[in-house]
Parts: sequence; C-alpha cells; structure tokens
Amino acid sequence: MPEFRKDPVTGRWVIIATERAKRPAAFPVKRQPTHSNEECPFCPRREHMTPPEVLAYRQPGTDHNEAGWWLRVVPNKFPALVSGEPVKRSGDGMYDRINGMGMHEVVIETPRHDEHVGDMEVKMVEEIIWAYRDRTVEMRKDPRLEYVMIFKNHLREAGASIDHPHSQIIATPIVPKRVQEEIDGAQRYFDYKERCVFCDMIDQEKKDQMRLVAENELFIAFLPYASRFPFECSIMPKEHTSFFHDIQKNEVTEFAKVLKETMSRLKNVLDDPAFNWILHTTPLRETENGYYHWHMEIIPKLSQPAGFEWGTGFYINPFPPEDAARILKLDGAAEQAAG
Amino acid sequence: MPEFRKDPVTGRWVIIATERAKRPAAFPVKRQPTHSNEECPFCPRREHMTPPEVLAYRQPGTDHNEAGWWLRVVPNKFPALVSGEPVKRSGDGMYDRINGMGMHEVVIETPRHDEHVGDMEVKMVEEIIWAYRDRTVEMRKDPRLEYVMIFKNHLREAGASIDHPHSQIIATPIVPKRVQEEIDGAQRYFDYKERCVFCDMIDQEKKDQMRLVAENELFIAFLPYASRFPFECSIMPKEHTSFFHDIQKNEVTEFAKVLKETMSRLKNVLDDPAFNWILHTTPLRETENGYYHWHMEIIPKLSQPAGFEWGTGFYINPFPPEDAARILKLDGAAEQAAG
Repeated sequence: MPEFRKDPVTGRWVIIATERAKRPAAFPVKRQPTHSNEECPFCPRREHMTPPEVLAYRQPGTDHNEAGWWLRVVPNKFPALVSGEPVKRSGDGMYDRINGMGMHEVVIETPRHDEHVGDMEVKMVEEIIWAYRDRTVEMRKDPRLEYVMIFKNHLREAGASIDHPHSQIIATPIVPKRVQEEIDGAQRYFDYKERCVFCDMIDQEKKDQMRLVAENELFIAFLPYASRFPFECSIMPKEHTSFFHDIQKNEVTEFAKVLKETMSRLKNVLDDPAFNWILHTTPLRETENGYYHWHMEIIPKLSQPAGFEWGTGFYINPFPPEDAARILKLDGAAEQAAG
Repeated sequence: MPEFRKDPVTGRWVIIATERAKRPAAFPVKRQPTHSNEECPFCPRREHMTPPEVLAYRQPGTDHNEAGWWLRVVPNKFPALVSGEPVKRSGDGMYDRINGMGMHEVVIETPRHDEHVGDMEVKMVEEIIWAYRDRTVEMRKDPRLEYVMIFKNHLREAGASIDHPHSQIIATPIVPKRVQEEIDGAQRYFDYKERCVFCDMIDQEKKDQMRLVAENELFIAFLPYASRFPFECSIMPKEHTSFFHDIQKNEVTEFAKVLKETMSRLKNVLDDPAFNWILHTTPLRETENGYYHWHMEIIPKLSQPAGFEWGTGFYINPFPPEDAARILKLDGAAEQAAG
C-alpha cells in the first residue's frame, strides 16, 4: 500500500509507492512507452482495458463501458493512492506517515485519439470542465478527503504516459503544502489590503495589457508578472470565487472559450508543446472566503529545469512574459487578418 | 538588465532576464547544443574563451588565464545576474521588483573534459569543496548579498549546457523562499524539541540503517525518508554546523570521500545519470545557530516530473528510498567482493 511520508524539515508530504518494495528489484523508473493509436486503452471500443467508468457523458441508449461516450472518467489503473481505507496517521521513529488513502481517476477527454484541446469545439472543452466539476462535487462527499487536485499532462515531456487526451484527478486526505502556501499568502495580502490579491492582479493586468493573452466577459488569461517559466499562463474567473466547483453554467462556457483560445495560441506559436495544466482551488473543508480565488495554471515544458530551480525553489526565466504575450498575440492578429 | 520579480501571492522571487526584450523576437528557449571536446571553452588552453578567472588552483610558475590549473573559477559568460550595481527595490503597479544585482560564477572542476566526480581522486573532490568555500567567503564580504547558492548540473537532462565538469555559484541580494522555508521548518522543530532536526535525522538514519548509502567518521549520506525523487540523496556533516563555509580542513577530506563514494554508486547503478546537486547553507547575514545544519542534496534526473509535482509542490515517488538504498549498497558489496 502506498503511503504519505512527511519531510521533517519542511513539513512537505510525499506519496511513496511502497508496494513496489514487494516487486523484484527491477529498476522501475523508466516510463512505459506511449501506446500507439492501435492499442490505446482510452480509445472507443477498448473500454474493457480500463477499470469500469465512474462517470460518462454518452449518447442516450448506449451502455456503461461501451462506445457511445464523448467523455469518460475511470479510476486510474495504476493508482498512486487507494480508496476505501480509513485515514491512519502513525510515527516511524522520528518520522510521520499516513497510509496512502485517496482517489486517483482519469478523465478521458474525447473519443478522438489525436484531438488537441486547442482544436476542440468549445462545447467539448465545456464537457471537460463539467467532468472536473462533477467529480469534485462527488469526491467532496467523502469527509476523509481534504483536497482535490486536477491536472493534465500533455505529451511525454510533461509526464504523460498515454497520448490520448486525458487529465487526472487525485483526492488526498491532506492539503498539499504548496496549495496551503498560496492560500496563506493570499490571506496575508487580504489582512493587509482587505482585498483579494487575485482580483487585484486581474485589475492590474487589464490596465497593463502587455501580459494579456485572452479575455472575455467572465474570464481572463495572462502571463504572470513573476512567471517562473517562459509562456506560463494563468486563467482566472473575473468574479471572485473561492471554489472551482461553484462555477456557474454561463461561466463554464466562457472559461472553455478562454481556455481553448489560450491553448490554441500556445499550440500554434510553440509547435504543440508539452504542457501541464493545474487547477488551483480552495481545500474542500474550508468555506467560501474573500481571499482565495480559484484559477488554472498552464505551464508549457520548453526547457529542462536546472538544479538552480529544483533545489532552492528559485527560478530563472530567460524569456520575459511581456515578450511571450506579444508573440502569442501576434499569432492571433495574423490569424484574424488571415481569417 | 535582469530583474527579480516577486510573485504577489506566494512571495517567491523569480529572476527574469528582461534584457532579452531588446533582442529580436527570435524564440530563445531552446538550449544551445553542448560543445564537443574540440571546442569546449572549459578545457585547458582555451582560457581566453571564458571571462578572466577570479580564482584558480594552479601549478606554481604558471600564469593567470593560461594552462597549468587543476581548478578554475570564472564569471559566467551569460550571467543571470550582474554585479557592481546597488540594490534597488521598486514597485511596478501592484507588483514588486529588485534590479538583478548579484554574482554568477562557474567552477571548472577539472582540466579533464570527461572526468566524472565519482571517478575523481579524493584530492580533486576536496579541491572542488575548497573552491566552493573560498568563493563563499569572498562573496560574503559584499554586504549587499544575502545568500550564496552552489549547485551542479550534470548532463543536459539536468540543465547543463556544457559537458565539461563544472558547478555554478549564484549570489543574490535576497534569501530564496525555499531556503527560508527549510530554515523556518528547522526552527519550528527546534522550538518544540530543543534539538536540531538534521542531527535527529542523522541519529535516526544510523539506527534504521536501511536508507544509508555511505558513512565515515565525520559525514553521512542517506536517502531521505520522504524522498521526492527516486535515488535522491542527502549528505550531512555529523557535527552540527550552520554554515558550509565554516567547514574544517579535516571535514573537507571526509566530505570529499563520502561525496565521491555516493556519486560513484549512483553512476554505477544508474548508468551515469543526469543529476543536480545543491548545497544548502545558512543565509550569509544570520549567525551560527542550533537549528540549521548545512547539507548537500543530490537529485538524479531519472524521469520527467509530471504536472502533479509542478503545480502543487506535491510529489509522487514511485520507488521507495529503502529499495534504492539496497540497490546502491548491493553494488558496493559486489564491488568489495570483486576487489
């Protein structure tokens, strides 16, 4: 059974897949090769290759775990965490651990093996957002779970082991340290200014314009002032909301539009880069508040992070966000001129 | 001129190379190819290809910036920070920035283009440690500088752009957030236990044995209980010391032995993996204290970090440190049996 182990210095929890200790000492850190289209377990009519679906959006009259779906959520076949266990905290000498209880699911975003989110119909992108929201609401019913992490790895360089478009959802009995840091930082700002730091950023970015990527009535996408990575993007709802899963129906549509436009620009300008996106939301057991504002981070994987970044949490970004935004928008202008 | 920019939510400072904004909009995020041996700027008799040396350990009677050295420190030709400027803090709308003042140097560790630290004579490894120490002491004389980061990227997958063995030293007018977090965590432990958390870890690892990699009278190398990455190693002095640059002469020798042994085992077992090492020490302007204990982290680059890790600071390690230690030690046992 996997377990959470706590770093005694920083308090950071790590998931350690200890069940591997029972396997032969073969060296397991090389990634499995990506499946070709012919053997992809996420393509229609291969539903038996995944665990049974926990959610599917499908044509009326089609059966569970058969073709006819346009989006499907299944438990991860190789989960980092296992469900159905009580949360047990224990000591291990001076160290602390928790059994690896939690949920780990995969959102298969489309039946089409090669479809890029930047090329999808907005309607399909909306369905991904609805699936994220529906699963969060469902997971929240389990009182042992404290946080739901939703993220997407696109291409192997970003950690994907399967090409077919998919995201992952991991629910844990602890709040990740980095999430808590962001919340604490937002709270400090609120204590001082009595305003939400994310709302202030939205105002600043609208005023400065030079880091904007996409915007509509309800959502905004921009490259953060202190971007850690070239072409890193943030997408935020303009209306202050703490919980992603409280998203309104009309917001889903506008979020989908801005997300699609951002991904399309990144794809065109950077030649379909590997990327990660991560949804940042308030921990499940907190209440709606004035200081934390859900958002999405998108991080293209363009160069290897170097030791400098890893060891110290200190980043060097060789390409200013203002330049990156200009390039992303030029592309859009060219397209508009062409269209 | 580069600048530090502060993330308004987390307070994390990022170095942004804004001078690139003046360059044409060519897309600069691809790494330059590694030099072949024939054109390596770090090999002897190519001293003119680097800025003039700031430190060299060389044969008596040889001239500055000529062959005859066995270790050489030069300013980085493409520095992330520039020296000789006063520290200026300023606002930028709601955001905060500091001009990119600091130092960025390269330690050329050996004249031999292909020498791996795991294969070096212990005497040569000692010289690397002395260079780290000498440059830290020198940089500390500049009262504007708050922290000295010393790290090594080995191979391109770990961020190296040149194959010739080298490390980097970056001195900054701020303390990196991740460093401060480690110090704060150590201080919290000390406040509660009235003991150093690192000293306690050393005791625990000696008792548990199963994560040990190498040990002698003065130093210990082990895989951390909550390892973020497979085969991640920590090396610590057994004697509590806050500042790396206070290292004693006999400690330099023992550190070099444990470092070489650890690197040799990693090289043999993992087939010369890319890696980063990072020295963690107390910020320059603090005083010797009971809670922070300098140490080195070594992180082999075996698999891509996935979105999960990036976005949340939450790591999944698929290979338990106890298994990794067993494999590393088996290799040593085999060698000893063979020898």
